[in-house]
Amino acid sequence: MSWAEGFIAVDWGTTNRRAYRVAADGSCVEELEDGKGILSVKSEEFEGAVSEIRDRLGEGPMLLAGMVGSNRGWVEAPYVSCPAGLDELAGGLVWTDDKTAIVPGVAYSADRSDVMRGEEVQILGAAASGEIPADCLVCHPGTHNKWVLVENSRIQSFRTVMTGELFNLLRKHSILSDSLDTDEMYDAPFRAGVREGLSGNALTSELFSVRASVLLGRLDKAHAVSFTSGLLIGYDVCAGVSGKSAEPLIVMGRPELTTLYSKALEEAGVESRQIDGEGAFLAGARKIAERIR
Amino acid sequence: MSWAEGFIAVDWGTTNRRAYRVAADGSCVEELEDGKGILSVKSEEFEGAVSEIRDRLGEGPMLLAGMVGSNRGWVEAPYVSCPAGLDELAGGLVWTDDKTAIVPGVAYSADRSDVMRGEEVQILGAAASGEIPADCLVCHPGTHNKWVLVENSRIQSFRTVMTGELFNLLRKHSILSDSLDTDEMYDAPFRAGVREGLSGNALTSELFSVRASVLLGRLDKAHAVSFTSGLLIGYDVCAGVSGKSAEPLIVMGRPELTTLYSKALEEAGVESRQIDGEGAFLAGARKIAERIR
Repeated sequence: MSWAEGFIAVDWGTTNRRAYRVAADGSCVEELEDGKGILSVKSEEFEGAVSEIRDRLGEGPMLLAGMVGSNRGWVEAPYVSCPAGLDELAGGLVWTDDKTAIVPGVAYSADRSDVMRGEEVQILGAAASGEIPADCLVCHPGTHNKWVLVENSRIQSFRTVMTGELFNLLRKHSILSDSLDTDEMYDAPFRAGVREGLSGNALTSELFSVRASVLLGRLDKAHAVSFTSGLLIGYDVCAGVSGKSAEPLIVMGRPELTTLYSKALEEAGVESRQIDGEGAFLAGARKIAERIR
Repeated sequence: MSWAEGFIAVDWGTTNRRAYRVAADGSCVEELEDGKGILSVKSEEFEGAVSEIRDRLGEGPMLLAGMVGSNRGWVEAPYVSCPAGLDELAGGLVWTDDKTAIVPGVAYSADRSDVMRGEEVQILGAAASGEIPADCLVCHPGTHNKWVLVENSRIQSFRTVMTGELFNLLRKHSILSDSLDTDEMYDAPFRAGVREGLSGNALTSELFSVRASVLLGRLDKAHAVSFTSGLLIGYDVCAGVSGKSAEPLIVMGRPELTTLYSKALEEAGVESRQIDGEGAFLAGARKIAERIR
């Protein structure tokens, strides 16, 4: 079975994986999603975990992207350097056998160092399929939010902000845990947090102030999670859009996160458009598969 | 036995406690230190944990300060507000029986909200005994670093930066854990981290960059802990000294931490003087005991 007859595309992250069977006409005809992210798979178990996908979705060729290609994943696919487009991704594929390829991540190393794995397929896929402009700034929230400058449909540079991870650390393990043990989100305290985050005050000080505000009765405990989420995202937006020219701004990823970032950008006076990352991933996988002939 | 004949002073924090028997002449004649911080003592166990101290150090009156007076401690001693001096602390003592008093914490609530418990005894003690000037800026590192503006030997305002806690969270629970699993500290990467932190770039982005720099071979993994410590402390110093006038700057606390902050201040071009917090605590406890008559 050749790539043109269809293939399986896998977006394999740290905590989850999603696999799609893509038909010859490019449509997604079947999918599976489970919690077998790379952190829950031992190195000797990856072959079995891949077979499992083929058992469910068929014996076609397979393209794997995301943390599965990291040094903690199955087989390491070395980073390609910025500027990187679909040709560079296809050129950097690492083959585990003649029908199974792993997509490389992208590295930025100039004034700073930065790395990504997984987002590049979505972003370049969306650019190649015309879903986003060839020149734009993409905000891709997740455990590690990425601000990605796209030029001529290639990733020119990017900056990671570990907002999602810090939020989870604070909720689970910090002195703030007590104040952040609710799940419900409220709009007004979220936006108040965003404005505080946008002010550029020292984040590690503002975070402690959340606890103090709850203790002193100046912040309703039920609102503390929303405020803290807003504070972190506002600080993130401040880092991501500062000094950028007026490119169109796209927020891409899971809808529950892109909504929050769009609100934060609105508070910052920046217009943005939301794109669901799942469709963009499939577009990217198809474009890479087209280059494997 | 009256307070003038001697007393026991206890500095009871989140993870440790230290107790001192102070003689009639003010000298410390015996002490104990153990890991029974408030997090390891259940609320019904506090009476026993206090008796234990008296069994070891004698039946005198006892003054307790620190997190033992918090809502997670033994008996809550409500915060006194800034500006706060030794008179306010003595006036806010909460008595659990006629010879056992808990020192209140200090709250700041104006443009921001902030709280402290424990550092106030050290800082006001050092000011009252002339060890630090009546007007100065005190940096008090720990799990939560405090920048405390002292005016006329009273705490005028302060700002907490949760540097120590974030450092521990990152080492124990984050994507950086892998890169931060060494203990040895090196001066050059620490200072390089400080300079990066002082630059005011977005902390949550610079932190991820540490991981990327290690992955891309641009930062020696053995230096990553030193660099990250410097980055966090540099960012902290940037938050703490910005906009402050040229008061003398004191760094007070445990010597292994005051050394790091002094180095970071040196990188920022700010002169500072280090003071050991233990002697300052005893000075503060004596000054409060003098007011109980």
